[in-house]
Order: sequence, then structure tokens, then C-alpha cells
Amino acid sequence: MLRDLFSNSDTSTAPSVESRRTFLRKGALAALATGVATACRPTEAATVTGHPAKATKPAPTPAAPAVTATATLAAARANADAMDKMHEAAMKAFPAKTAKHGNQPLAPRIEKGVKVFDLVARKVQWETEPGKFAEAWAYNEMVPGPTIRVREGDRVRINVKNELPESTSVHFHGLELPNAMDGVTFITQPPIKPGDSYTYEFTAPNPGSHMYHSHHNSTKQVSLGLLGAFIIEPKDRSSEPRVDVDELFILNDGLNGFTINGKGFPATKPIVAKLGQTVRIRFMNEGMMIHPMHLHGMHMTVIAKDGWTQPQPWKCDTLNVAPGERWDVLVKCTNPGTWAFHCHILPHAESEHGMFGMVTALVVQA
Amino acid sequence: MLRDLFSNSDTSTAPSVESRRTFLRKGALAALATGVATACRPTEAATVTGHPAKATKPAPTPAAPAVTATATLAAARANADAMDKMHEAAMKAFPAKTAKHGNQPLAPRIEKGVKVFDLVARKVQWETEPGKFAEAWAYNEMVPGPTIRVREGDRVRINVKNELPESTSVHFHGLELPNAMDGVTFITQPPIKPGDSYTYEFTAPNPGSHMYHSHHNSTKQVSLGLLGAFIIEPKDRSSEPRVDVDELFILNDGLNGFTINGKGFPATKPIVAKLGQTVRIRFMNEGMMIHPMHLHGMHMTVIAKDGWTQPQPWKCDTLNVAPGERWDVLVKCTNPGTWAFHCHILPHAESEHGMFGMVTALVVQA
Amino acid sequence: MLRDLFSNSDTSTAPSVESRRTFLRKGALAALATGVATACRPTEAATVTGHPAKATKPAPTPAAPAVTATATLAAARANADAMDKMHEAAMKAFPAKTAKHGNQPLAPRIEKGVKVFDLVARKVQWETEPGKFAEAWAYNEMVPGPTIRVREGDRVRINVKNELPESTSVHFHGLELPNAMDGVTFITQPPIKPGDSYTYEFTAPNPGSHMYHSHHNSTKQVSLGLLGAFIIEPKDRSSEPRVDVDELFILNDGLNGFTINGKGFPATKPIVAKLGQTVRIRFMNEGMMIHPMHLHGMHMTVIAKDGWTQPQPWKCDTLNVAPGERWDVLVKCTNPGTWAFHCHILPHAESEHGMFGMVTALVVQA
Repeated sequence: MLRDLFSNSDTSTAPSVESRRTFLRKGALAALATGVATACRPTEAATVTGHPAKATKPAPTPAAPAVTATATLAAARANADAMDKMHEAAMKAFPAKTAKHGNQPLAPRIEKGVKVFDLVARKVQWETEPGKFAEAWAYNEMVPGPTIRVREGDRVRINVKNELPESTSVHFHGLELPNAMDGVTFITQPPIKPGDSYTYEFTAPNPGSHMYHSHHNSTKQVSLGLLGAFIIEPKDRSSEPRVDVDELFILNDGLNGFTINGKGFPATKPIVAKLGQTVRIRFMNEGMMIHPMHLHGMHMTVIAKDGWTQPQPWKCDTLNVAPGERWDVLVKCTNPGTWAFHCHILPHAESEHGMFGMVTALVVQA
Repeated sequence: MLRDLFSNSDTSTAPSVESRRTFLRKGALAALATGVATACRPTEAATVTGHPAKATKPAPTPAAPAVTATATLAAARANADAMDKMHEAAMKAFPAKTAKHGNQPLAPRIEKGVKVFDLVARKVQWETEPGKFAEAWAYNEMVPGPTIRVREGDRVRINVKNELPESTSVHFHGLELPNAMDGVTFITQPPIKPGDSYTYEFTAPNPGSHMYHSHHNSTKQVSLGLLGAFIIEPKDRSSEPRVDVDELFILNDGLNGFTINGKGFPATKPIVAKLGQTVRIRFMNEGMMIHPMHLHGMHMTVIAKDGWTQPQPWKCDTLNVAPGERWDVLVKCTNPGTWAFHCHILPHAESEHGMFGMVTALVVQA
Repeated sequence: MLRDLFSNSDTSTAPSVESRRTFLRKGALAALATGVATACRPTEAATVTGHPAKATKPAPTPAAPAVTATATLAAARANADAMDKMHEAAMKAFPAKTAKHGNQPLAPRIEKGVKVFDLVARKVQWETEPGKFAEAWAYNEMVPGPTIRVREGDRVRINVKNELPESTSVHFHGLELPNAMDGVTFITQPPIKPGDSYTYEFTAPNPGSHMYHSHHNSTKQVSLGLLGAFIIEPKDRSSEPRVDVDELFILNDGLNGFTINGKGFPATKPIVAKLGQTVRIRFMNEGMMIHPMHLHGMHMTVIAKDGWTQPQPWKCDTLNVAPGERWDVLVKCTNPGTWAFHCHILPHAESEHGMFGMVTALVVQA
């Protein structure tokens, strides 16, 4: 989908860039290496632009011998080319293939009317970016863990098997459960020791976008990946928005870096929709920092906070998601193209080596 | 109140944990010490769970000699037991006794119709956690300082005596006062020098949840404890919510650590209410970081921001409180039990040694 | 405007400070130097306050020889005087003169009905505080870059000339543009190499408070100053608020420190309005951290987020602005005086040397 990146669906004046000729770039390397200027005159440098006649009056720059100015420019371009190559490589790699993805739907077994889900917590090697493996602590060997999706009023049983080298527990973040099912060690239950299992059982309460995650030594365990989405669909679907695409955006920022759904750019998955479709995104922050998520090209309409409908929907293009929060937004895909979608704390999204971490794209297909 | 932690008020299937036999735990220590495996076969390890039949198909793990696997598990359990002991001790200690608590109501003297409050700013030794004393800078020897509560329209006089080794001043954060009463040194008043006193006098303006704190060398002075709540009750109480319990939640994160109302867990005080009661919580952030506060088991209904009624109440379970902000929420206590209530930036709430810092509980008594 | 700082427009009791006599301050220095006490008795120290009769009962302090207590107090006052001198100097310097200010309006040329704006990106030396120059990367040699202001539906052309030593691009943050005009290198356009120019052209879309900034190596480039405001006025002005003063508040926190509109206190510009006037402030965060902006003396009414009208206005005195966000607020200037206006993350606003960084004032002239 990135092949036709530079096509312009607008009928407006196409952007124009006139590159300096290739020999100039090569010359830059020579200039860098030798300190000797190329033969280009500075005036030539001034005419490479597409709109020289429209240029702002440049502020006076210190007078410099033409030869030096040209050498400086050539050196800058050579440096720029080297940096841009890394940036381009990151973009071209997107969406990069990595082993396994999180958030896979977990199909329950039905036992006497109860929806039964099995979770196994275990250490895995997790590929966050191509070739970058790190130790993760995972439910069912994926980060985020499998998505649990039930309906309000369903009877639900969750069997948790602990194959970690530490005790653990599972908290159902946002679910208003009976106290004994809340998953906080030494408040509502004993820890689940290594090798042991534990069963949670309850009736699915308040609907919405919720989470499940470890609530024992959680700074480490959640950071390493013991987390997942727990979606409760409302019994009465009349007030549910009609959406064509339903996406999760689970944020983390622990030892395995800045990730969306367990992957760092360029291994993040783009969201893909057709022109005119409506996408719901459920943001969930399982990290330790805020992440103001910025969508290019279209706005988001915020409809729910922590699973609760907002009294009135409101619009934004940058949504500040704090740890523990969930926000549901709708995006009406009215603008065709590949749109950057990233955390606007820029060091979470771009370095001198190009974009990384909390970056993905919304692709609206015309 | 933590005695019946593991009782289950739900009629659902009780959670089940089947521990490995005690000798196994003892064996673990032996295994750790000697590297020699216990006699248990790995298949035995697989049958300790309560729901072996329901277990997810575990992903294949590298084949290992039975003896090694068992030794590994035993070692893990021994490690887990050691860690869990610390976690349990922190929980069992809650609510831990420490010397003095902040936020004590300050009764005014009435002088010719004026409500007069006296504040003395002074260094104290403050016990944030049992046995952990630190230098605090305090009003009336408590952190947070005494709660000042007046009624809109009241004539109020605040006498401040500075017994600190630095100048200071008091800003009434959120109160729309005459400029000379705003408490900003060198903008609205000279500093109050060590040994000097200063008097503020004004008519209580806009009602709501406000604060008072130093506005001189404030990065240090507020961080060390020169802060307190300033509540102005509205003249017209018709739009006030009816609440059974009215609580403060003053957050700080300075040199004396992550605290709620001047104490770190387990020395924080739980909020206690009866089933069916309504609790108002007034969050106030006097720190340098955001603190997204997460309540388990029930939601919060947000009714006011910085003392101003929100146009419409809205619901959440995680409320992001930024420095300088105040948020009023209501909790309808519909769910009996002891519910964790903590900052969801997990390193502000839990370490490998157990929960600490910005953690407390809402106890709903059936 | 700071001359009559200590005048009190209130008719209430004026604040009272009774300084210890000057000789005592001088004595403090002597006491510090020699360790020998002045001749003042401690009881004298107790009577310097204006309201001794109203003093709270001071908690018992350890008995100390009178001589020592007085010497300690004198030393404290000498220290306090030295610190206060720095605080006073910072305040007195406000608003301090520095070379150049950002956010200057950029008048377009009209070419065949198109509004044409020229931007040149270039390194400059930028004075953030008096005498403190730092390298900035700037549009048209100012930080923030010039303010671009157009009307919804206008045809707009932006010529960008890159005179930086790196490639760059311009993203119009918040504008819902055709994809090719979105300014993200290697997604929607090639980088603009050093020495090259690039032209963006589009019809001004969704109105509101938007931004433009680099979207190439942006962690560095935006941090260094490649950013500015892009305001689109609505075609239908019927729902626009009537404002007397329209201000920008662009926040940054990069290598050049904590700044509002490119300057750190005391070089920040105060907002000045007359009593009864309405000020609109457009907050824009181009930094990497949240900044909860706190206005003293009056509240702010929040009317828009990211250029989109909020469903209902709401009030606050502390507004948490996250990176990438824009918030529009109105302040009805009902309270005369010079009011502090600052980030409430106190280390962004005050050190032991006095106020600095993200501090300015709203001056309401009676």
C-alpha cells in the first residue's frame, strides 16, 4: 500500500521538488572527503528550487566565498542523504513482518452455558521489531494476550495457569465484579504460585472496552506483557455505533520499548478501511507514561471513556491516553490515503534513524 | 477489615487454588541449595491445577529431563514464596499506624464576624510510612496542612507565621481573590521572611475544591509539604450532591515519595463507607507528575473540575489528575468489599517488594 | 505594570508585614560569620508579628538558649534575603527585552486568488532569555515561526525553502488535507533536501487552532523550533466567540528549555487586557511533556479542542495541555491586577533562583 505513496489524489497543484542532479550528490561526498568544492556556482544552488520567483527574501547571510558555500551545501546534502536513507528504509519496511501478533480472538468453550477461557502465563521470546527479540511475559504466548470478548450477562469462567517463575494474578480492569474475583493478591485472593492454576468465574457486568492484566508485581509483569483486552458487548445494542472496522490500540512503554499492540514500528499493523467506512478504535494504555495519539488527515470522535459512554461525543485529532485509561473513538474515513498515526511525544515515535515505536498508519482505500 | 479478604460475597463458583504439597515447597529450598531434584515427576506438576481438563493446550516447550523441570519449578516457587512474603506483609500492615495525619479540620475563631485561621509554617519530622521519617515543611505540623473550610461569602482572615529557614508566602489556588491576596511573592506581596507573619483577608469567593500552598521557592516548598485543601461551600446548596462521606485525596510525589494525603502505602488511610452510601472524593494534585487514579470494583462519576461543575457528569474508573488540578467525583458504593484504589502508573504503586506509595482502598461494608 | 504591585484594589484589611529592624538583618550576617548571637532576646523575636494575639499556639519546640535561637533566626533571614534578591530580580526584570519575538503574522501575497506564504527554514541564534542565546532551527528566523492565518475555503500556497543542514518537511497538524499535502516524509512526499524548496498548495479545510511543524527528524527539528501556528478562521463566523484580545500560547520544552512562545520567563510577554474584556488563548503544545497551565485570579472557559468546538463549554483554572493538543479558552477579565500564569509542574516554572521558564502574566488593567 505504500507503493503509490507519492500519487496525489488531489486535483490541486502537485507538489514539486527539483532535486539537484545526481552528480552533485556524488560531488558532495567528494567535497566532504577532500574539503575541495565542486564546480557549481552558488547561483546554481539558488535555481534548483521549483518556485524561485516566489521565494521569500532570504535574510542576509554572512558573506562567504562561493566555493565554501557550495561545499557546505554539498556536505549537508550528503549528510541528509545518509540520514534520509535510514528514514526511508524504516518507512519502506512498513508493515514489517514479525513472528506472531497479539490480540488474537480467544474462542471460548461452552460448558453448561458457561463461556470458558483458558489463559497460560509463560515467558516467551517476543519479536517487537524485525529481528529484535526480547523476553516477554505473555498470556497464551502473545503480547497483548488474546482478546476476550463476551456479552453483558454472559456467565464467564477464566482458567489461569501460571508457568512463570513468579506468582501472579489476573485483574479484570474496568469490570465491576464481585470482590473475590478482582484479582488483587493478598486483598482478594492468594497469589497464584508458579505451577498452580486459578479459576475466576463471574457474570459479565458493565459493558465496554476493558482490560485484563497481572495485579501482582505488576510494574514488572504488566510491563513485560501480561495484559490483554476484555471487551463486553452491551446486551442492548441499540445505542452501539455501527462500525465497519473495530480496532484495538493497546499501548505499552516498558522494557520492550514503545509499542502499539505489542509491536514497534515498522512492525506495527496499519488499520485498513475503505473510503466512507467507520472505524472504531479502542485505545488502552497499559504503560507507565501518557501517550497523546495523533491521527493525520481526519479527526476522531470520542464516544466512550473506560467503557462508559461520554454524555456527548466530542472531536479531536490528538487524544491524550493516560495509563489505565481506555478511550473509544470513531473515525469516519472520508479522506483517502495512507495517514500517519502516532504518539505525539515525538521521542516515542521518531529518532535520527527514522520513525520507530508508537507509529502506525490508517490506510483509507479509495 | 482485611481479615475476611478471601470471603466471597458472590454466589458464583468460589475460586479454587490447589497448592502443591508443603513438602514440595520445602523440597524447593533443598533443590535450590543442592541442585538436586525432588522425586516428583513432571506429570505430577501438571496435575496440581484445579481444572486440568480445561487447560489450554500448552505450546510445546523444549524437552527437558523430568528431574530438571521439577527442580526449576521448585526453585521458582521458593523464589515466589520469598517475594510473596514481602507483598503479603505490606498488605497485612494496611492501614499501618504512623504518627499524625494531615488534613485535620482547622476550626476558626470568630472575631467580629470574621473567621480567623492561624497557620504556622515550620520544619517537622514527618512519618510517611511506619518508621520512615523525613524532613517535611508543614503548616501546623501536618502534611497536608489543616483543611480550611468556609462558606461562600464568609469573611476570612488567615494569619501566617513563618518559622521556616526561608521566606515563604501562601497562594490560594483556585480562589478568585483581590490581587493583593493572591500570595505570589514580588508580584502581589513581599516575601514573608523567617520569623515574620503575614495576614490575608478576603471574602470567600467562587465555591469548590481549592488548595492553598506556598508560592515562593515553591518547587521545594510545596514538594516538602507546604500545601493543604481550601474548601468553599456554596451559599446555595441546592445543587450540591448529597454525600455520606466526603474525602480528600491530595497527591504528592516529591522528595518524600509518592503519597496520598501525606502518607505512602501501607500508612495511607482507607476510605470506608456502607453499602449504598455515596462518597465524594476531591482529588488534588500538588505534585510534579500526573497520577491517573484507578478505582477497582466501581466507577466514579466526575462532577467538577477545579471547583467548577462540569456541564454534564461523566463516568470513568481511571481519572488522570495533573499537577494543580482538582477533580470532584462521586462513588455510589454498590459493591461490597475491600477495593484497591491506586495510581495506575504502576511504578508509583508497586515494586518487587509489594505495594507502596500511591495506594489505598475503598472499603464498602455490607 | 509591575510598579504598583503592592497596591490593594480590595477594600479589605490590607496585608501587614512587620519586618525586623534592619540592624537585625545586618546582625544576621555577623551572626553567620562569627557564630555569636546578637543581643535580641527571643521574646523580641516573638513580638515582631502583626497579630501576636491571634497566633496559633505554636507547638512546643525544644528549649534552646535564647542566644542560639536568635542567631539561627538571624542566619535564616540573611539566607532568605540572599535568595529573595534573586527571586525579586527575576520578577522585576519581567517583561525582559530580548531580540526578536516569534508568532509574527505572515502577510500572504495574492497570486491569481491564491494566498501565498513563503517559509525559509534556517539555523539561527535565538535569545530565549536576556543574554541566553542558543541555536534554534526556525522558520523565517523566528521561534515559533510566523503565524499563518487564513479563512476556511481560501486557496493557500506555502513555499518552503530548506536552508538547514538536514532534510525537512512541513506537516500541517490538524488540517484535513489531501494526502499528498500532509508533509510526512516517505509517506506522502520525499524529504526536502538542504538547498531545495517545496510547495504545498491546498484549500483551507476545517477551521480552528492548528499548527505547522517539521515531520522529518522531528524529535530534533520541532524541539529546536521548526513550528508555528496555523489558524483557519471559519467561513461562518456566527458561532465564533467575540473576543477583544486573541493570544497564542505555544509551549515547548526541548533543548532550549521551557518556553512559552519561544521565550523563557522573564522574557515571556504578558497578556494585557482591560477590565471587562474577553481574551481568547489558544494553547498549543509542541513539546515532549504535558504542561498543566494555571491562571491565577480568574477561570478559563474551554471552548475548543484541536480546533473543534466542545459540545459544551466548561470551566477550569488549570488546563492540562498534552503534546500535539490545542485547546482554545476564553478568559473574561473581571479581576484587575497582574496575575501569574504558569505551568503547574513547578520545576518548569520556579527554582531556588526564582521564577523562570513557563511563566508569564495576565495583566488586567482597571
